[in-house]
Amino acid sequence: MRASASADRGKRADARRNIEAIVEAATRLLAVDPDASVNEIAKAAGVGRVTLYGHFDSRTALMREVADRAIQQTDQALTGVDLGGDPRDALGRLLEVTWQLTHRFGALVVAASHTLPPEAMQRVHDKPAARVRTLLERGRDAGEFRGDVPIDWQLSVVQAILHGASTAVHRGEITAEAAPVLVRDTVLAALAA
Amino acid sequence: MRASASADRGKRADARRNIEAIVEAATRLLAVDPDASVNEIAKAAGVGRVTLYGHFDSRTALMREVADRAIQQTDQALTGVDLGGDPRDALGRLLEVTWQLTHRFGALVVAASHTLPPEAMQRVHDKPAARVRTLLERGRDAGEFRGDVPIDWQLSVVQAILHGASTAVHRGEITAEAAPVLVRDTVLAALAA
Repeated sequence: MRASASADRGKRADARRNIEAIVEAATRLLAVDPDASVNEIAKAAGVGRVTLYGHFDSRTALMREVADRAIQQTDQALTGVDLGGDPRDALGRLLEVTWQLTHRFGALVVAASHTLPPEAMQRVHDKPAARVRTLLERGRDAGEFRGDVPIDWQLSVVQAILHGASTAVHRGEITAEAAPVLVRDTVLAALAA
Repeated sequence: MRASASADRGKRADARRNIEAIVEAATRLLAVDPDASVNEIAKAAGVGRVTLYGHFDSRTALMREVADRAIQQTDQALTGVDLGGDPRDALGRLLEVTWQLTHRFGALVVAASHTLPPEAMQRVHDKPAARVRTLLERGRDAGEFRGDVPIDWQLSVVQAILHGASTAVHRGEITAEAAPVLVRDTVLAALAA
């Protein structure tokens, strides 16, 4: 019994390691190529196709797990941002972290949007957008941001500039190092009262 | 001979009318739904599937014709914009016309990007981008636009805000009537020295 229990634990540990390797490889590959295949992901994870399908019934199931983890990590990272004090400074801090997440998970979101239903995709954007909206409201009330244009428009501008920066980095037009400051300065200028 | 020549002319006129109706219907449907099928396009054009395929060998061939015409119309509209005088005013005029084109042809570009090769897609953006770039250069030299950030970044910001506005209109967050002024004001604020 002891030997068999220990063998079971060994198997479970193996399975956990495989799952981690598969999810990690999928996150990495899909961030570069939204059309990366299950075969490519299995190869990059160092497991066989059969092992991969043993843990994930389909590419969609794997995609869902990758997206769930990305959402979880995004949430954790954003929760850590101090949104107090001057609204411009607070938005600057939030944009810096959001930029890193957009750039890391941006292509993943594109990949997921080919596979997951629109409701699931909406959830990816809703929580981060709610944080930015709260700050925009505070900055508008304080007279730091323009209050004479729809707040939804300002939210769209923030998202557009973040995604534009990610595209510009992928195209080699700006460096990933320069991006956060460019994003922050441009967004603050665009919103300024 | 005379009757037959006249019948030929009639057939050619019919064919031209059908081609126009097909291209017009394709432009209209694809602008709303990038995945509109050949059947749907034929139906909207009031022609049979066989007639459509008589004029266009494939969905790709039709898409290419639609994209070519959109590029031609874009080019004509942009050529009509006065780019002289104060760079901020000139960019405002250019943005207004560009917005109309982005909004009209935006989903079409998405549809085309699923079908046409990347080089063809690049051409869609290159000429309009060159016009904006020329104005940006002039405004930077005049000290009206920031000159301490990459001009490629400023070009990305202009494109991001234009596409962001189109998305915001499609989502019902801003109206198509409000969009041009929001786009112009936001872009000018984002670029301001």
